[in-house]
Amino acid sequence: MTYNHRPYIPHQTIAAIATPPGEGGIAVIRISGIEAFRIASALFSKPVQGAKEHKILVGTLSNRAGQKLDQVLLLVMKGPKTFTGEDTVEIQCHGGRLVARKILEAALEAGALAAKPGEFSFQAFMNHRLDLSQAEAIAELIHAKNEYAFSQSLGQLEGALSKKIAGFQQRLTHIAAILEAWVDFPEEGLEFASFEEIIADLEAISSDCQKLISSFDQGKIIHDGIRMSIVGSPNVGKSSLMNALLGRDRAIVSPIPGTTRDLIEDDLHLGNLHFRVCDTAGIRHGAELIEEEGIRRAKHAIENSDLILYVRDVQDSHHHDELCDLLPKEKSILIWNKIDLPHSEPLPKKAFGHCVELSAQKGTNMDALISTIEEVIWAGHHPSTEEIIITKLRHKESLLRAKNHLHAVIEGLQQNKSAEFVTFDVREALNELGTIIGANVTEDILTEIFSQFCVGK
Amino acid sequence: MTYNHRPYIPHQTIAAIATPPGEGGIAVIRISGIEAFRIASALFSKPVQGAKEHKILVGTLSNRAGQKLDQVLLLVMKGPKTFTGEDTVEIQCHGGRLVARKILEAALEAGALAAKPGEFSFQAFMNHRLDLSQAEAIAELIHAKNEYAFSQSLGQLEGALSKKIAGFQQRLTHIAAILEAWVDFPEEGLEFASFEEIIADLEAISSDCQKLISSFDQGKIIHDGIRMSIVGSPNVGKSSLMNALLGRDRAIVSPIPGTTRDLIEDDLHLGNLHFRVCDTAGIRHGAELIEEEGIRRAKHAIENSDLILYVRDVQDSHHHDELCDLLPKEKSILIWNKIDLPHSEPLPKKAFGHCVELSAQKGTNMDALISTIEEVIWAGHHPSTEEIIITKLRHKESLLRAKNHLHAVIEGLQQNKSAEFVTFDVREALNELGTIIGANVTEDILTEIFSQFCVGK
Repeated sequence: MTYNHRPYIPHQTIAAIATPPGEGGIAVIRISGIEAFRIASALFSKPVQGAKEHKILVGTLSNRAGQKLDQVLLLVMKGPKTFTGEDTVEIQCHGGRLVARKILEAALEAGALAAKPGEFSFQAFMNHRLDLSQAEAIAELIHAKNEYAFSQSLGQLEGALSKKIAGFQQRLTHIAAILEAWVDFPEEGLEFASFEEIIADLEAISSDCQKLISSFDQGKIIHDGIRMSIVGSPNVGKSSLMNALLGRDRAIVSPIPGTTRDLIEDDLHLGNLHFRVCDTAGIRHGAELIEEEGIRRAKHAIENSDLILYVRDVQDSHHHDELCDLLPKEKSILIWNKIDLPHSEPLPKKAFGHCVELSAQKGTNMDALISTIEEVIWAGHHPSTEEIIITKLRHKESLLRAKNHLHAVIEGLQQNKSAEFVTFDVREALNELGTIIGANVTEDILTEIFSQFCVGK
Repeated sequence: MTYNHRPYIPHQTIAAIATPPGEGGIAVIRISGIEAFRIASALFSKPVQGAKEHKILVGTLSNRAGQKLDQVLLLVMKGPKTFTGEDTVEIQCHGGRLVARKILEAALEAGALAAKPGEFSFQAFMNHRLDLSQAEAIAELIHAKNEYAFSQSLGQLEGALSKKIAGFQQRLTHIAAILEAWVDFPEEGLEFASFEEIIADLEAISSDCQKLISSFDQGKIIHDGIRMSIVGSPNVGKSSLMNALLGRDRAIVSPIPGTTRDLIEDDLHLGNLHFRVCDTAGIRHGAELIEEEGIRRAKHAIENSDLILYVRDVQDSHHHDELCDLLPKEKSILIWNKIDLPHSEPLPKKAFGHCVELSAQKGTNMDALISTIEEVIWAGHHPSTEEIIITKLRHKESLLRAKNHLHAVIEGLQQNKSAEFVTFDVREALNELGTIIGANVTEDILTEIFSQFCVGK
């Protein structure tokens, strides 16, 4: 098996800087593999031997030419009870790019190979310290931008998804055994379970798969953030609304120019979610926006947003707005702005399921808007932190294929197809479930998954 | 003593993220102080007790509400044999901003105080684990951008400067003892050493102080980098020269717009030095530069550069260039460019001590330019990595004051001033030397020094 154009050799010794680049108090260089202790001994002021317990040594690190590089802590961890499953040495040196780089160079000179992105996790996977979904969870944990993403990836790292999948596999293996017996002794029929029981079991597994598949949309929201647009006619208060939302947030990053010169995007955190707010209101034109331009932008927003805030001015509630007809009601919120100004009552809700009356400038009723946003996003189903949610398209696709095979099994049984025919699909379903946790996964998929990790992980 | 508006209490427990911000394989949260083990025990899945030897525990970290935060390595290090001299726990978690932040929050909830910038080093200083010059060396090591800066700060961290200063103090204390005896028994005269011996000793110490003071200019070059400008008339090849220099460097950062719109600055590494190259050649004008503008820029370069590359075209060697008269010859190098084109021989050296003939475009003789640059920078004195160099203005000023007091002592002795008068200046000189390693340093100076550190160090 090759990995990123370098042959994978079990126990091969690799090294990388494991902390983020930049200036900080400390940096850590990780060395993992059969030669880790020998390499560390060659560079460290004391002999490095693997004891039964993990230990910390204090001393001086030098390169092979004898140049002192730093006073360091050396963490000595004997495999297989390490992250990678290999003998592991971590060198904790003073922060700063140069120190860590020089120590890494010394380790490479002494015989370690420069680790590829994700290669420590890859070692852990190959040594069965992590399954594939757990390895993927590490990458997600590192990139987690909100509370949900954090809990969800931590759960997955601890094996929540793996256990769920293993549960499916176990139930399906049980059915497979019964069907295999049926292949061997077709005249005895399905003696260990009734036909109806097997169908019911298969349908239950299929429905559980579907639950996970359905969680993917939530998973995407949690991990990638929500694309939200603010649309409306000129002067209804879109900019004020944008500012009122952003003003609540202490963690805003500086505005990032959008892909088109007409759009400003901003990161926004509300509660435990994060949003990419696409602010068509950020544009300044000398003249008033013409109607056509408003429509063009609304269309763009509809195509590219998970959520649309449609802003209207209460003073103008009888005016028919063309935008209104274009908006998909299920992912839009109608906002009557400037509620502090004179207006007719009641304000029309049109066909919108969600409607909020507020004043962006005065900050009136902004909390109601935020709860409404959460309501629309979760579509009434607010995930608990215990719930298992899938976030990888790869997982969704495997589950979909497994489900299709399960349906083929049910259909085959109902149509009295031959036992061989039916068991083929059971095995295929098992196979698809296996790929999620890393069984029978091709080299290409492994390469793609691990190469998306950062170096040092 | 207060430190950054929070009272300094010995053994107070502080916590911070010690690795650089950003996404990486791992992050480290450091907790130091008398409560470090109790706080870690409250959050960790296993009891944390200080054993005699440093050890590594593997387990789960949760906040006080019981929410699991990560699977971590916990480094348990019993004081006083730790960096800070306090009981220290380091929590190594998965990288990423959220994980480390949540663990830090949990430690703060459990009773740790958020560490101020440099506060771990400050604890180390207060606990006599480091003297002040060593603490300063850590900050310099972290920011070191080149080989010299690296070796020099590492040497200082290992106590090279401290030992040098301690040597001065010892020699001076010996003289002080003799002079004190003279105060008590003036009629017996200087019985433990001759007058001439004492004067000679004082002059030797003063001259050694002067050597360190003189090293400051080199120290500045090593730590801050060299400001280098390229000047010359239009079309002599300034841009080509800039590119030829930059092309040699694999570690260029992207161009940073200068303070004025007319200047482009670039980081350049040549050998073990780094430069800020101010490229007046980067400007594009529709029309040719007028003579006046060239003069204005040359003046700017003279004022703001440590080194000036003055470029001329060999084809135009007889032309008198007004710039030539303006340049300070000791920090300028005359470069005859386009040496591959027809030109008259020999090319005039004018009054320049250093002159190189090259072709920037063809890359001819670029090595000669680089050796000449090093020659000019070091002014014939290339520091060895063992040599002790001071890099802090604070150190230079203390040494200057110490030297002045030594001169007052010598003068006092030569003018037969009273012993009390002379010993006062000896004590003041000792005092000034002490401040370098942190004796008798005021709170304000400590605050200023440590607040320039990064958080987590």
